[in-house]
This record gives sequence, structure tokens and C-alpha cells, in this order.
Amino acid sequence: MLLRMSSLFLRTLRDDPADAEVPSHKLLVRAGYVRRVAPGVYSWLPLGKLVLDNVGRVVREEMNRMGGQEVLLPALLPREYYEATGRWTEYGDTLFRLQDRKGADYLLGPTHEEMFTDMVKGEYSSYKDFPVILYQIQTKYRDEARPRAGILRGREFVMKDSYSFDLDDDGLKRSYEQHREAYIRIFERLGIDYKIVFAMSGAMGGSASEEFLAPCATGEDTFVACHNCGYAANAEAVTTPAPPAVPAGRPAMRVLDTPGTPTIETLVDYVNEHFGLGVTAADTLKNIVVKVGTPGSDKTEVLVIGVPGDREVDFKRLEAALSPGIPEIFEAADFEKHPGLVRGYIGPQVLKDLGITYLVDPRVVTGSAWVTGANEPGRHAADVVAGRDFTPDGTIEAAEVRAGDECPRCGSPLSIDRGIEIGHIFQLGRKYADAAQLDALGPDGKPIRVTMGSYGVGVSRAVAVIAEQRHDELGLVWPREIAPADVHIVGTGKENQVEVALQLAGELERLGLRVLCDDRPGVSPGVKFKDAELLGVPTIVIIGRGLAQGVIELRDRVSGVKEEVPLDGAAARIAAACAG
Amino acid sequence: MLLRMSSLFLRTLRDDPADAEVPSHKLLVRAGYVRRVAPGVYSWLPLGKLVLDNVGRVVREEMNRMGGQEVLLPALLPREYYEATGRWTEYGDTLFRLQDRKGADYLLGPTHEEMFTDMVKGEYSSYKDFPVILYQIQTKYRDEARPRAGILRGREFVMKDSYSFDLDDDGLKRSYEQHREAYIRIFERLGIDYKIVFAMSGAMGGSASEEFLAPCATGEDTFVACHNCGYAANAEAVTTPAPPAVPAGRPAMRVLDTPGTPTIETLVDYVNEHFGLGVTAADTLKNIVVKVGTPGSDKTEVLVIGVPGDREVDFKRLEAALSPGIPEIFEAADFEKHPGLVRGYIGPQVLKDLGITYLVDPRVVTGSAWVTGANEPGRHAADVVAGRDFTPDGTIEAAEVRAGDECPRCGSPLSIDRGIEIGHIFQLGRKYADAAQLDALGPDGKPIRVTMGSYGVGVSRAVAVIAEQRHDELGLVWPREIAPADVHIVGTGKENQVEVALQLAGELERLGLRVLCDDRPGVSPGVKFKDAELLGVPTIVIIGRGLAQGVIELRDRVSGVKEEVPLDGAAARIAAACAG
Repeated sequence: MLLRMSSLFLRTLRDDPADAEVPSHKLLVRAGYVRRVAPGVYSWLPLGKLVLDNVGRVVREEMNRMGGQEVLLPALLPREYYEATGRWTEYGDTLFRLQDRKGADYLLGPTHEEMFTDMVKGEYSSYKDFPVILYQIQTKYRDEARPRAGILRGREFVMKDSYSFDLDDDGLKRSYEQHREAYIRIFERLGIDYKIVFAMSGAMGGSASEEFLAPCATGEDTFVACHNCGYAANAEAVTTPAPPAVPAGRPAMRVLDTPGTPTIETLVDYVNEHFGLGVTAADTLKNIVVKVGTPGSDKTEVLVIGVPGDREVDFKRLEAALSPGIPEIFEAADFEKHPGLVRGYIGPQVLKDLGITYLVDPRVVTGSAWVTGANEPGRHAADVVAGRDFTPDGTIEAAEVRAGDECPRCGSPLSIDRGIEIGHIFQLGRKYADAAQLDALGPDGKPIRVTMGSYGVGVSRAVAVIAEQRHDELGLVWPREIAPADVHIVGTGKENQVEVALQLAGELERLGLRVLCDDRPGVSPGVKFKDAELLGVPTIVIIGRGLAQGVIELRDRVSGVKEEVPLDGAAARIAAACAG
Repeated sequence: MLLRMSSLFLRTLRDDPADAEVPSHKLLVRAGYVRRVAPGVYSWLPLGKLVLDNVGRVVREEMNRMGGQEVLLPALLPREYYEATGRWTEYGDTLFRLQDRKGADYLLGPTHEEMFTDMVKGEYSSYKDFPVILYQIQTKYRDEARPRAGILRGREFVMKDSYSFDLDDDGLKRSYEQHREAYIRIFERLGIDYKIVFAMSGAMGGSASEEFLAPCATGEDTFVACHNCGYAANAEAVTTPAPPAVPAGRPAMRVLDTPGTPTIETLVDYVNEHFGLGVTAADTLKNIVVKVGTPGSDKTEVLVIGVPGDREVDFKRLEAALSPGIPEIFEAADFEKHPGLVRGYIGPQVLKDLGITYLVDPRVVTGSAWVTGANEPGRHAADVVAGRDFTPDGTIEAAEVRAGDECPRCGSPLSIDRGIEIGHIFQLGRKYADAAQLDALGPDGKPIRVTMGSYGVGVSRAVAVIAEQRHDELGLVWPREIAPADVHIVGTGKENQVEVALQLAGELERLGLRVLCDDRPGVSPGVKFKDAELLGVPTIVIIGRGLAQGVIELRDRVSGVKEEVPLDGAAARIAAACAG
């Protein structure tokens, strides 16, 4: 491959695009890799397409190596498949829906569990056929509420999705492990720094699931890690270790007049000052009311959530815990319809009588005593004991996670970081096989319900993640396997430099290298050097003033090391440098 | 590559699918290459995906060779780009339209002229930047009224579309010629038998355009060819040579009582018998009324078309001639609203007074005399002379084309055949550049409006076309470059045949061949042979009973020639056979 910049469809930009906030977005646009067409919808220019294809190739090679078989399913999918599993509605606004000319309902595939299940059901029927792992690298569609950060979170994006089909749980675990190992190889080859963390399965259903997260300050996902035992989980999946149950024997609940205590802080100050309780915010019980909507329905249910007063409710954790239910803010108008809920003074004591579901943070164990609302304006209650004065309907992981929280595995303090999801592996189990009645005929003639896994890699997102992790103040710094070229030759000067650059480029191309050659006439050396740094090809060769002395310059984009080498034999020298 | 059939996701079918009418559809489904998901929407199974990728690779190589630069645009496109050129409405029901969660209008791209124009406008500004040719291989969407024939005419399909941008007409012609040559190389490599025919540009706008058609009895397109001068055109583009103008001097028009003559045949018989006119159907002028609709509007306009009575109006030619207008049947209710149009007895004499547009077949030249309707029930008129008794508003190519019609270039008789469109090259001109105001700044500082071409190859359709042209009664017969594998090894027998087959397969893989090995246990030799023939890999190797004598069988799938070769040295022998 030899690309000549004199004709390459590439224009670099001096300034960051106005809508760009994160480095990968700024750099991929400035370096002419992608262009925005609509919110979350991008075009790939020639260099971007090469990088995207390189990522796809690595993913394909590793999927094939683990025995995955490549197929290609449509993106335009009929409603009925997703109706059968409930996802037509559960996906809510995130699903792009449309009708054809006959009024039949279609969707643009956000993920293909239903379709792969149906496909396997169409071809396979005997236990001898299994296991099988199928995958595709395909364009997917999700109508994100907040598309952002360029190709990092798009509405049209390229994904590798694969699906495993096994006869039993051990088989599923093996397929899952195979994927885990393949993903490790993929992200190593892509040069992505990643963490494997426990994850919730969200709308996908299923049991075991892990995410591959690329730690990144601009990431949308929060995850915790324990540096003692190695536990790591995304914020939605972190479990809160429950303290031991508290023995009985607390004094009876009593109601206190607490005027002017609208916040936890004012309440704590007031009860310590006026009643000498000696409590902290963590001893108060804050009760948050939400409405929980069901996708595809107008109805909502009232839910109260109790968390220790020193913690906020983390809306993303709440969403994950309630999925596919959708939590919504409980507005003033809603309070008017529920006079039993006294805004600012809600206590769980009355919820059973009001017929309202009450879920609590796992720290609210049986026997624990709390200062909480007394369900009257200006009054709170103390010594409100769980299991005595109120009985929660269950627990919920909705309270914020904080650095220093206890590791649920070993009790050491957790650290918190941000990251970008680049891969996800799920043990789905039988949810989709049940919906499609996907059975294999067993050796005894009896049907065996198939168990499934689903696994994703964000292919286009990986391009942005690599850019996010691999850049400096000058521009992009691609790992060689992903770079749009192996070597970027800059010919600059008024003598025969460009001519020599093209000769060398041709020689390197014949050696099998992918070459980008800056042969642009009338462009200053400074602009050419800046562009070479911005584009991020790992090896840069400058053919400039030194040519008169028969030397050219070799630059390593990663280390910045520069070296003069004789033009004679330069091709072999450069090829060696590119071979690493 | 080594695919083992014992684990390959492939199940061949004994019977043709119920909905399949054409051979490619039947065979691609039976051989397990594709599966239907919805009308005109298909999945590609592993072998199908390999073939699809092979076609894509050939197209990509030839596009790169001619200097095309690959990019990738989204399929989800905002309305405004297509609104600017009018195609948001002109495309009518063929466009898949949808809204996002904010109610913004989107479409699924059927073709990307607008987007590429905008992309070039975004990057390029100087005359020095041009020319440029950009292409993509991408999934496209068209809501066909009658999706049919499997992947031959789908609603989601893979297409290579490219766009050329030039500064002047000569440049456009060069870009067009480059594409023409690249397409010839592509279809030669794909092993497709094709014809290049003149074409109408339809909804695309523009001037010169040719189609690459694969002659095929089941094709949807009709084309004519002249075996004398080489002229070829699709039916929509065939032009009718006008006869010389007829000198004046015909007797005056006269009205005849012609009771009971509702058809051309009865009319001709009646006037010959009762008035001794001695005319044939070709001397009568048949007047067809249609309504012409405008996409995106409810309004229609009345149009009368005059054709010689021995010819029908060809609706596809009519549609092409009126595009983007949409012809509709003029119903009984419409006649009631237009009492001046006397059904069955319409003559052009009154149309000017009625304010109705009248277009005629090119055979209706000035001075020609016709027997036609007298605009009264049961009466016709004779010696109705064009230019004297009526004056058409123009000509229209709407009459059917027949074998034996005169070649418009040399006058020899034309032949008629059917074919499938596999490629299309257009000189678009400045339509899209005008809409987007795509200018290059010229050397004199003045803007130069860019001129464009657009060019398409049906990548997924090509798979079906190859299957359509390359099969026999046993199954598919792939050209080697497109085949899912180079060699299909069948191991069959109760000794160590399968083991030897796998050894040979491994050896061939190491030699760089793409190998499919039938190592399925418990499958009869007959089934394995049948599957090998059905799948259509060009070289088949049978390792069966002869193995005891150290010989295996080599079969050429195209010629059917069988040959026994010693196992010793078989790999080199097979590699040579595969090398051609």
C-alpha cells in the first residue's frame, strides 16, 4: 500500500472542532479520520477507514482463532422477533423503529440475540450439533439519549457481536472463558489498556457478566477496584457488604419536633443539639420517592428507596437495579396525589399502610436503628428500628459508591476510576432460548433447552479508545498494528527530495510495508512535520536538507527518538524498525 | 483457511424453499449460503459470507487500482441533505424513513450522492484538489415494492458506490471511462457474463449513463441489442428512429361512423370493410390517458399519450420517461370528471381545447395521417394529420419495444433479451453540486462548479448473479476467485479416510489454499458427494475406497472431469490444479 498525500482525500484541521470535548474526538476530527454527519453519526475518511478495518481484522482473526464462525445478519429487523422477548418495548426510546411501505414494523438492530437464536434454531436440531459460536462484525443502531464524544458513543456504530450456544452450564462457562481469553488477546493486540470488571447484565438478562473497561478520565462508566484482592466491578454491579444484624433491645421509637430541618445536615445538627442523640448523617435514613415506568406503557408505580443519609442515590445504579423499569423523578404534582408522603419528612413507618413498595440499601439490616422522617411536617422520628418499626420489601443497590468503601470480597478500601466500555461478555442462560424454544434433541430422544452467551466488542469505539489512550500534545500515536500505515515519509525541500521520497516509498511498498508519503508540492516543511505528528503513523522518515549529504532522518513517533541514517540501505533499515 | 464440515455452521437442504422461483435463490438457500429474515432481507451464513467478502475484495482491489479512495459513510442519514435535492420526496415509498427520539427525520441511505457531495465540499476548496474519486462498500436500503428472488432484489443489500468529482466535462468523461474500464475488469474477474447497454438515468438526473447487465432469462430488465453495429440499450433507453416527415397533400380529415369497434382490431376490420381504407393497426393512432403524480404531493396532471395502434404502452418505459413523475391508471371515475375525453374514442383533435398535454410516439411525425378517435361514441376519424389536425406537445418513448424493431443507430433489426443490472455508471453533471453549491476556487480566483459522476456495483446482488449464471442441475459452480474455498476434500469410508483427508487438508492449508474438508462422521458417501456438488467449490478431492491402493480422486466441478492421483504428492498436484 502506498498512499500519496498529494492526492489523498485528507485535510487536517488546525483547530479543534467546536463540539469536541474529549481528546480522541478532537484529534480524530483534526487529523481527518472522521467527520460528523448528524448527532452520533459519523463518516470515516480514508485514513479512518484503514484504522477501522485494522481493528476489525484483529477482532476477526482472534474470533476465528477461538473457533468462532463469521456470519452477517441484517440491521433491518422485523418487530416480531423482538416482540417475542419483550425487547421491542423494553428497549424504550433507544430503539430506532420504522415501518415499511406496507406498514409493517421494523427496527434497526441494537444487538442480535433474538436473530442468532432463531438462526441456530433454523439450522441445528441435534445435541451432536452443539456447541457453536457465531459472530458478526456489523453496523448497529442505538438512539442514545446523549450521543457524545464523537465515535466514542455513537448512534450508528460498528460492533463485533458473538453468541455461544451450549447444551449445559459447563459448556456455557467454557464458551464464556474462551471469549474472555480471546478478548484479552484482542485488547492486547489493539494496544488498549483495560480492566476486566464485574458487570450487571442490564436489559440483556442473564447471570454472570464482565465488562472490559478502558480506564480513561473522560469515560462514562465508573468502576471500583480493590488493590488488595483484585476485585473490580462497574459502579452498577458493586455490591454493598451488609453489616451484621444488630441485636434487639433498642428503646421504643419516639417522634421529635425538628423544625427547620429540611436537609440531612440541619437535621443532624438539630437532633444532636436539642436531643443529644450524638448521631452522624450515616445514622439517618433518607427516603427517596421515584416513579418507576414500564417501557411501552404509560403506567408508573411509586417506589420509595431508603439509603443512609450520608449517601446520595446514584441514578445510574438505580436505573441498572430497576431495569427494564425506568425510574423517573417524583414531581410536586405527584406528591399532591399522594398526601400520605410528606415531602422532606418521609419515614418508612407508614409505607406498608400506604401500599407503597419500600426497598433499602443493604446497610439497613434488621435491628439497625435510624433517625428518619415522622411523616408529619417538621417532625422526625428516632430509634426507628428495621424489622420492628418497619419492614422493607427488599434491598436495592442504588446508593452511590465512594472511594474507600469496603471491598465486598475482602473488606479492603476500594478505589474508584472512570472508564469506557470496550467489551462485554455475558452468560445469558436460557432467556432467549426459552422465548424461541430453542431445543436440541438429546441422545435419549428428549429435548435439551440450549443455554447461551452473548459477547460484544465495540469496533468503531475501539478506534476512539485507542486514540484516547494513545496520543500526546502533538497528535495521535497509533500502535503499529492499528496505524493507517507503517511509515510516513516526508519529502521536503527544493531539490529532488520529493522524488527520492517517492522512490523510497515504492521500495518500502515492494517490501510489503504500508506507506504514506507526503509528496505535496508547495507545502512548508513545518506543516508537513506537524501533519506527520498529528496523523500518528509510528515511524516517520524525513527526507530533507540532509539528502545532499546522503542522509535521511528516522523518527519514532512513540519515543520521539530521532536518528540520521544513510539513504543507501535505508529501506532495509526502515523495514527493520517497522518490524519492531 | 481450513473449514471442517463436522463443525461448520452449515446445513444443506434437500428441497427448494417454497418462496424461491429463480435458480440462484433456490441454490443459495439449499446450499446454506443465505437465509431469509424478512421480505428482501437476508442473513449470510459462513459460506455465503466468504463469497460475499470475495466479491467485495475484487471490487475493492479494482477500485483501488483505478485510484478510488475508500471511505465509509453512515446508512442513517438526516433528512435535510435529501430535502435540498428534492429526493426526500422524489424517492417516494422506496425510501425507508424514520424519526429519532427527538422527532428528527432520518432516512436509510438508498444511494449517497448528497452525502459525498457534502463530504467533498467539507474538505476541498481549490481547483488543485480535483479530480477525486471516492467510494464505499456499504449496506444500502430500498423499500422495494416487490422484493424478490432472494438476494437478487433485496431491501437491505451491499453495494459499492463511488462518486467522481471533476472540474470540467472532459474530466468527468475521463472519470467515467476509468470506471467503465474498472467495471469491465471487475465483472471479468467475477466470472459474470455481461453486456454494457445505454441507460436512462431515472431519479438520478444527469446525462450519459450505461448499465452493466447480466443476460439472464429470469432478469427483471429488458434490453435490446443490434448484432450489426453493436448498439445495446435497456428498454427504457431505446430511442425510436423517427420516419422522415411526410409531404403535405392528404385529403381533409373526415369523421366515420364506426359502431362496435372498441378495439384496434375491430376498428381496422370495420374501416377496411366499410370504407375501403386498406389500413393496418400501425396506421391507427391509439390514445392512452394517464394521471401523472408528483412524489410528495396529492396532485396529479392528466396526460394523453399517442402511440401507433399496433403497439402497447410499456409501463416501465413510460415510468422512466416521466420520472420523477409517477404515472397512474386513469380510472372510470377520472373519465367522469373529464367528459371531453370519450373513453374508447379519444382523438388528439380536441386535446388543445381541453388544455390536456399530448405526447406522441416518435413515429407520429409531422404530416403523418392516422385513423383515430373522433371524440364521440361510436365514431372515428380518418386522415387525421399530425401538424395539421393536431399538434403534439412533444414526443415520448413509451411504446413497447419489439424484437425486429429498427436499430436507432444503423437500422438493422434489434434483438431483445432479459438481464439483471449489476453495475451502473452515470455522468451526473452538476445537479448535486448545484444543490450543495460545490465549487472549487479556480486559478483566476473565480469559482468553478464541480461536475460529478456516480457509479454502482451490486455486491450482494453479484453473488446471486454468479449463482444464476454458474450452476448446473447438481448445484452451484463458483469461479475460483469467488468460491468459498479452493478445494473441497471429502473423506469417506470406514478406514482412516477421514484422518487422511484432514492430514491432506492441513497440508493444503499450509500451501496457502483455502480448504473445506468434509470430515463429518456417520454421513454417507452419497450425501457427502451431493453436498460437494451442491456447494460448488471448483476442485473436489475424494478420499474413499481407493485409499487402500494409495489413490485418491480429483474432480473438476466445472468440467466434471475425474482423475485418479496417487496420495503421494497429491498436495502439490492439487495446488497445481487450483492454480489453474
